[in-house]
Amino acid sequence: MSNIVIRKASREDCPRLMALVKGLAEYEKAPEEVTVSLSHFEESGFGDNPVWWAFVAEIDGWVCGFSLYYIRYSTWKGRRIYLEDIYVEPEMRGKGIGAMLFDAVMQEGKSGDFSGMMWQALDWNQPALDFYSKYGTRFDEEWVNCSIEFKDV
Amino acid sequence: MSNIVIRKASREDCPRLMALVKGLAEYEKAPEEVTVSLSHFEESGFGDNPVWWAFVAEIDGWVCGFSLYYIRYSTWKGRRIYLEDIYVEPEMRGKGIGAMLFDAVMQEGKSGDFSGMMWQALDWNQPALDFYSKYGTRFDEEWVNCSIEFKDV
Repeated sequence: MSNIVIRKASREDCPRLMALVKGLAEYEKAPEEVTVSLSHFEESGFGDNPVWWAFVAEIDGWVCGFSLYYIRYSTWKGRRIYLEDIYVEPEMRGKGIGAMLFDAVMQEGKSGDFSGMMWQALDWNQPALDFYSKYGTRFDEEWVNCSIEFKDV
Repeated sequence: MSNIVIRKASREDCPRLMALVKGLAEYEKAPEEVTVSLSHFEESGFGDNPVWWAFVAEIDGWVCGFSLYYIRYSTWKGRRIYLEDIYVEPEMRGKGIGAMLFDAVMQEGKSGDFSGMMWQALDWNQPALDFYSKYGTRFDEEWVNCSIEFKDV
């Protein structure tokens, strides 16, 4: 896999990233939950006030995976890097690309002013939980995600 | 309770807010988890690049509760307002102050460019879950919180 390139995502990657986000939502059994528009997605990442950043894995010009992150604040731990999504196309799994994308975000966090890295995994996604375990990840199952919707954006 | 004032937190509130954050961590049975320093907390909220904002409930000059929030990004739903903490001192509970603090954050979210509001509750905190249920909150228990620590800040 010597021709895999991990690089920062650019605005031009957004349509492809949106398609991969939808692929991830399908894997997570919630494709109808993706309601964000491409223009909002682009503007949020590459407008005047970016709120997310991403790495992409590219092979011969084809983006086959991504990891997307942003900054969170914990009143307990201070500034945290938050891994929102990590995804590799099914046919490219098992080649270490997920680890490269995960490591890229972790390096970003370690080199910045962050106390740690956080993310969420689905409790039935054993391959993901096994993967994260290798990093000495702490798992905490006693929290319930709560949400109220206002409008689609 | 006519003399309760809900207002935006200022830098001068930070020492008191830190004390309330610790009160909340004790209630959540994790007081040792609060490792952030006061200077980092102040700088993160009132420095050049604020990453959190808060409301405080004040009664006769005494801050007896707060709600603290920041902006998150969901690749599925777009920009979200995230309620990081909400807390009212034990002796002031049952007077509707929590609802006032919760409503203040929700209004902030509704008046801004946010698709919705998100937060987490402990699965054993039935009073909190009951409170949130009144708002038509969607609860999702299938996610596991994951974290890796880098350093204290």
